[in-house]
Amino acid sequence: MTNVDFTISRLGVPQINTPLRALLARKCWPVHFVSDQEQVPFDPNIKTLREVFQKGGEILSVERAGPREKIYFDPQKTKAGIVTCGGLCPGINDVIREIVMQLYYRYGTMEIYGFRYGYEGLIETYGHEVKTLTPDTVAHIHRMGGSILSSSRGQQDSSSMVNYLKKLGVNMLFVIGGDGTLRGALDIAEHAEKVKYELSVIGIPKTVDNDILHIDRSFGFETAFSEATKSIISAHAEAKGVKNGVGLVKLMGRSSGFIACFAALAMNDVNFVIIPEVPVELEGKKGFLEVLKKRLEAKKHAVIVVAEGSMQDVIAGEDLGKDASGNIRFKDAGIFLRNRINAYFKNQNMEVNIKYIDPSYIIRSIEASPLDNVYCLRLAQNAVHAAMSGRTKMVVGLRHGHFVHLPMALLAQGRRQVDADGELWQSVLSATGQPAIFE
Amino acid sequence: MTNVDFTISRLGVPQINTPLRALLARKCWPVHFVSDQEQVPFDPNIKTLREVFQKGGEILSVERAGPREKIYFDPQKTKAGIVTCGGLCPGINDVIREIVMQLYYRYGTMEIYGFRYGYEGLIETYGHEVKTLTPDTVAHIHRMGGSILSSSRGQQDSSSMVNYLKKLGVNMLFVIGGDGTLRGALDIAEHAEKVKYELSVIGIPKTVDNDILHIDRSFGFETAFSEATKSIISAHAEAKGVKNGVGLVKLMGRSSGFIACFAALAMNDVNFVIIPEVPVELEGKKGFLEVLKKRLEAKKHAVIVVAEGSMQDVIAGEDLGKDASGNIRFKDAGIFLRNRINAYFKNQNMEVNIKYIDPSYIIRSIEASPLDNVYCLRLAQNAVHAAMSGRTKMVVGLRHGHFVHLPMALLAQGRRQVDADGELWQSVLSATGQPAIFE
Amino acid sequence: MTNVDFTISRLGVPQINTPLRALLARKCWPVHFVSDQEQVPFDPNIKTLREVFQKGGEILSVERAGPREKIYFDPQKTKAGIVTCGGLCPGINDVIREIVMQLYYRYGTMEIYGFRYGYEGLIETYGHEVKTLTPDTVAHIHRMGGSILSSSRGQQDSSSMVNYLKKLGVNMLFVIGGDGTLRGALDIAEHAEKVKYELSVIGIPKTVDNDILHIDRSFGFETAFSEATKSIISAHAEAKGVKNGVGLVKLMGRSSGFIACFAALAMNDVNFVIIPEVPVELEGKKGFLEVLKKRLEAKKHAVIVVAEGSMQDVIAGEDLGKDASGNIRFKDAGIFLRNRINAYFKNQNMEVNIKYIDPSYIIRSIEASPLDNVYCLRLAQNAVHAAMSGRTKMVVGLRHGHFVHLPMALLAQGRRQVDADGELWQSVLSATGQPAIFE
Amino acid sequence: MTNVDFTISRLGVPQINTPLRALLARKCWPVHFVSDQEQVPFDPNIKTLREVFQKGGEILSVERAGPREKIYFDPQKTKAGIVTCGGLCPGINDVIREIVMQLYYRYGTMEIYGFRYGYEGLIETYGHEVKTLTPDTVAHIHRMGGSILSSSRGQQDSSSMVNYLKKLGVNMLFVIGGDGTLRGALDIAEHAEKVKYELSVIGIPKTVDNDILHIDRSFGFETAFSEATKSIISAHAEAKGVKNGVGLVKLMGRSSGFIACFAALAMNDVNFVIIPEVPVELEGKKGFLEVLKKRLEAKKHAVIVVAEGSMQDVIAGEDLGKDASGNIRFKDAGIFLRNRINAYFKNQNMEVNIKYIDPSYIIRSIEASPLDNVYCLRLAQNAVHAAMSGRTKMVVGLRHGHFVHLPMALLAQGRRQVDADGELWQSVLSATGQPAIFE
Repeated sequence: MTNVDFTISRLGVPQINTPLRALLARKCWPVHFVSDQEQVPFDPNIKTLREVFQKGGEILSVERAGPREKIYFDPQKTKAGIVTCGGLCPGINDVIREIVMQLYYRYGTMEIYGFRYGYEGLIETYGHEVKTLTPDTVAHIHRMGGSILSSSRGQQDSSSMVNYLKKLGVNMLFVIGGDGTLRGALDIAEHAEKVKYELSVIGIPKTVDNDILHIDRSFGFETAFSEATKSIISAHAEAKGVKNGVGLVKLMGRSSGFIACFAALAMNDVNFVIIPEVPVELEGKKGFLEVLKKRLEAKKHAVIVVAEGSMQDVIAGEDLGKDASGNIRFKDAGIFLRNRINAYFKNQNMEVNIKYIDPSYIIRSIEASPLDNVYCLRLAQNAVHAAMSGRTKMVVGLRHGHFVHLPMALLAQGRRQVDADGELWQSVLSATGQPAIFE
Repeated sequence: MTNVDFTISRLGVPQINTPLRALLARKCWPVHFVSDQEQVPFDPNIKTLREVFQKGGEILSVERAGPREKIYFDPQKTKAGIVTCGGLCPGINDVIREIVMQLYYRYGTMEIYGFRYGYEGLIETYGHEVKTLTPDTVAHIHRMGGSILSSSRGQQDSSSMVNYLKKLGVNMLFVIGGDGTLRGALDIAEHAEKVKYELSVIGIPKTVDNDILHIDRSFGFETAFSEATKSIISAHAEAKGVKNGVGLVKLMGRSSGFIACFAALAMNDVNFVIIPEVPVELEGKKGFLEVLKKRLEAKKHAVIVVAEGSMQDVIAGEDLGKDASGNIRFKDAGIFLRNRINAYFKNQNMEVNIKYIDPSYIIRSIEASPLDNVYCLRLAQNAVHAAMSGRTKMVVGLRHGHFVHLPMALLAQGRRQVDADGELWQSVLSATGQPAIFE
Repeated sequence: MTNVDFTISRLGVPQINTPLRALLARKCWPVHFVSDQEQVPFDPNIKTLREVFQKGGEILSVERAGPREKIYFDPQKTKAGIVTCGGLCPGINDVIREIVMQLYYRYGTMEIYGFRYGYEGLIETYGHEVKTLTPDTVAHIHRMGGSILSSSRGQQDSSSMVNYLKKLGVNMLFVIGGDGTLRGALDIAEHAEKVKYELSVIGIPKTVDNDILHIDRSFGFETAFSEATKSIISAHAEAKGVKNGVGLVKLMGRSSGFIACFAALAMNDVNFVIIPEVPVELEGKKGFLEVLKKRLEAKKHAVIVVAEGSMQDVIAGEDLGKDASGNIRFKDAGIFLRNRINAYFKNQNMEVNIKYIDPSYIIRSIEASPLDNVYCLRLAQNAVHAAMSGRTKMVVGLRHGHFVHLPMALLAQGRRQVDADGELWQSVLSATGQPAIFE
Repeated sequence: MTNVDFTISRLGVPQINTPLRALLARKCWPVHFVSDQEQVPFDPNIKTLREVFQKGGEILSVERAGPREKIYFDPQKTKAGIVTCGGLCPGINDVIREIVMQLYYRYGTMEIYGFRYGYEGLIETYGHEVKTLTPDTVAHIHRMGGSILSSSRGQQDSSSMVNYLKKLGVNMLFVIGGDGTLRGALDIAEHAEKVKYELSVIGIPKTVDNDILHIDRSFGFETAFSEATKSIISAHAEAKGVKNGVGLVKLMGRSSGFIACFAALAMNDVNFVIIPEVPVELEGKKGFLEVLKKRLEAKKHAVIVVAEGSMQDVIAGEDLGKDASGNIRFKDAGIFLRNRINAYFKNQNMEVNIKYIDPSYIIRSIEASPLDNVYCLRLAQNAVHAAMSGRTKMVVGLRHGHFVHLPMALLAQGRRQVDADGELWQSVLSATGQPAIFE
């Protein structure tokens, strides 16, 4: 984080009166615009704040998102583009829909292009259709999962992408994707700068795992873990439906266990949660398998939730390399754990009935929940406001309860994980009663 | 079916006035009782009916279920037992609940036992707790999936089971299970006859696959295929979310494809349905893989639903034997098909992205749908009426829209399958547009 | 029913080979066509069947629906129209979608018109847009409630409507509506006959109340009563949440109580069900209010479900006339009952807390349930098959578990009601424990 | 707020080692305890923080919630009580369940009483049963709406309540309720202090309207507005289903429009949102009715969401007084608006079809959503930790994303409203396109 410049990049000085004036600023009514001076502390730690301010220093702060009174682009002369990259996530269509609605109805920008199949769609030679997006074409998409633009993984050549955008006359590009995608978006923006093409690139961070850095939560995450609770309900019913039943639920989460933690807290019939952030010893007296055995002896059933990326260190076998997005291929912790449990109890001559449930894509390709609908809509509104103001190389996000502008470079730096010392994991321990560590 | 006696067995002549008289028969209001003379044709085929009746013959008919004016057991001196066997199915708890409610509140039978872990619970030496069931203990269970009694697979010794029932003084036993379970129930009833212990054994047929013979549908089936549609929605979103996306959904159905067919009709974004009843050739010019390829070339995505027990003949490998219930262990058609599709397109040098979804137990361990709630409730009511009337060795079921009594032996004879020449499969072909046969 | 001719009207002899041949009839595979000789007994009552057949007579039977090998219309020269009339009902869009899909993909009929706002859309002078329907325009509508064609109540001039259809060249009209709408459709068909315009008019009966005569159930009904169970769950929670809580749920059902009965059976926490078919005395020792009082004294809470058209005889006040569809305006039984309960207990000096819940349109304007999706799809398929075969003045429906053709005139004769002596009401009495009659 | 002392009251110095030590503090693993020194700024406004700190002053801060290493009460000698007051709200049972689970399993406090019917249950002479709560009795209640303890409105005599608690030996009382209830809880705590009875009184703020001061959101709110979106979906379908259809949805919100705003953002097919915080002029050229007329002329349908407490100033008629909780009785804005729209268009001779939908109690008596499940669970955990530490006269809540302790007096001061100048209302204006003010 140390190397990131927190100043939000801008294409120039906004000098155009926003068309939202008629909407937001009526006689006798306060004006609903956000001034550039409105900032929120990046990290409101009292001790730090006190120290810095007492010394006359200045703290790190971030701009509040929202409509500006003066904008940079002339809406009616502007063309916008939208692209969705990486895996599906609930709410992508909500974001697309509201970007279109805001541009079209509120700003009067009527030429909006949807690029197909991720960054491939920005490469002319792929020959993918470029969709024209209007309020009519997006009217009903907030009720559907997936992405009407489809997606792909991996980066493409920045120079070719900027050339194509230039050819089409696109001045603002909305990029919906994860940390890899944001690195790609930064490349695009920087290449545009280099060739002096005026292009605002605004990111809307997306990851179903909730592992985006520096924001309160990523859109679609609530929908995903909520849907995952159904697998826990089933696992619990199955586990109680037989003797020594073990309901084992594998959930998404390659490098972070947010879905596993929240799903387990939401449907608190879970006895063990295993996540990538907390190492687990399977064997030994205080190891997981022994603790599971004691649980079964006492209660005759158990429910386990395991994040897919857990226990990578103990899973034997070869390195599986990286996928097209550059993500390390993970070894499936669910199947691994099922096999180890089976082997252990066979060895112990104790009959257990494992019911393995992997909801897989179900939790990420469904329609967004109402709260995620709201979140997506507000992210999209703020993304449009930011682009119109001439900002670029930034993302919109929720931080400490406020919609803010964050430098794209900041979020592209890595991934967020569950803090093994934090409130969330502590709640999980309290809720499940599992030991803080299997050792 | 030829060897089954259609006469419903009875323990004796009902001579007791039902306590439902006060409820169902008021002054000036028609009496709500069903007479034993009320019958419905077992098979209302006009041609057969005409032939038989014109010759003065008599057709096969079955008794209508419902409350009788005279009953056999004295409700207040009667003890009842309930047992649930085999895999979970939505609605088991609804059936249990309404049996208890009817017995307790309508007939005044207050001693009701719930046997744990299937037929194991009827073997005293297992030492499983026998649950006392009251309206209080079952008040909320209709909102929960699973079985509050738990279950197990496999038959137990009839003699020991009858001894235990006798020791406990249980005169009526409600058995919730599939064809194997009903064979077991028949054994119990016959052994009780042999030792002259007055025991009414009434079956409530259960199978999530809807493969019970001779009834319109089995309870829980609607819930299960309805839940399965969510996997199809996800598979469709995933398939459209990438280039040449193939959404492959594996659904329950060991020997019958009802869940696959109904789910595909209900969420009609499916292009191919593969079920055990219809053979599939994978290779060849008119084979499945070639047809799939053409579909992808034309539309860039495809959705496939495959029942787990499909293509057993083409799946290579060893015989996997039988499980504790005597069911043949099936080779998983889903994983098999995924691998074959992957291999085929790799060989063809065509990039496809398979998204494999297996909702597994999720569709069977959830709360029953409202329509299944109604069905379970009415089955349970009729099961109680039948037991009270002294009937035994029978099941209650819906046939041609009427609740009827059917001989237990009849349903224990085998399993129902999708008629490959019938209305249902024809609808699937019309809905998907897939060829009648891959050859 | 006595005056209705059961012969299904036809425009002429079908002589064209169906394009479904390639789909449904493959080498070595049974042909999936339905012959005109396939009939099912209209009423499979054994006694009647025996009597009639023994005397050498013939029983009333109906044709099975399904694809015919020979069809009447040349699909590629045919134009089709669809119109939706009356109130909304879950599944209308499913029916529209599958009519379009069958016509377009299976038969090759590509000119399909959607008429807006019910029969108004068939009157040229109204100037309503006529929608061109293609697979693309209907692709996603099965996930949405309502009707993409909109609707209106009331009949229009048959002559003008036929003129407009003729002008547009429409040869087959699919009419989705209730008994009033079907009377209108019959008028259209008869006027077309009179002016010798070849027009097939096929009805798909629609009513959320399930009050269509002679069919097992109407589409959308399951969705509606399932949604209504949520109001019962809320009413039960509210009733138990306060002292002497009374949860009062009003449900749709102008002349029939099917929704009330099924919702109450599905969520069996209901103590009283009041429907139009069963008279209710409020006052008096065995009257409803006194029985309710006893219930509250014993259990401290009660849940009541009342169909909106109940107790019309006891509701004071003026005649409210008829609406545009000719339906008698009903006085709201829900508000009436709430007021009477309040007044009664105020008079008795007993504190009760009534929580009144009226889900109103919510239960009818939602997306159809999976089972209703299947039903709508199969109705639509069969409607298209019937139209293609040259049939007219008929509806498709499910009767005793089979899809059949029924004369339009038959269903236009009136409305179905809950049989106060039948299985359904008996189940409700058993489930609630309420007296057979409040007198 | 100026008069409130932000110091959290305590009964004494905690000197007992917490039994959570075994759970939360393992060898080599960070200790999961929260120190009393951990504080978060009450209001992290940069300008204020800078000013105060630069002057050497100190800002207002609040304690972080969480388990303490030393506790005040000896868990095994402690008795706890739970009471729920006011209207129902999703999640009450979740809070009850987790309080019981934490006390019983984590701390070892096994005597837990549930008081029935709100504060009435704390008055011995009412004679309400006091429920003994154990993990068994609460095992399944997180799947049910309502309150297993039932509720009532209004305060009772503090002296009698403390006497009863003393008699029962209850040392910690968990109070779930709104601002009125919290004032009552404060009375109880103060009376206990006066009579020197050691009693920890901890509030868990509850209001379905989300109008609790100073916290990010109240539990159950997300569930409620999510459920309300279904009414909007229906209203939209109904409005589009007829000519000039107006879908009018009335939602809860007596003095605040949070539910209306969030539901409208979540299901963004709404054209007008009317809330108590923003005055509305109905008549006049820029009045609501004229704007609605223009919308109908342009688009033929409209969807309106109105919070129940809106437009109180323009609703004619008498003052309706206050209810038992001291809440002002509101005049129903929904019915009022429906009538005014009807009258207006009748007067204009323009046919409109209003479909009025009032989901009423449905949105508040349902099962909590997964996110609310998580929130309730974490609130309950923190409430138990706070009580065990000997704190009193405080509530637990989420503020700027952190679980914190807040003085009870602070939240009892009034109600939160939608900030008509804030981000939320600005998003609503952007999403609906409605004018900032109808004037």
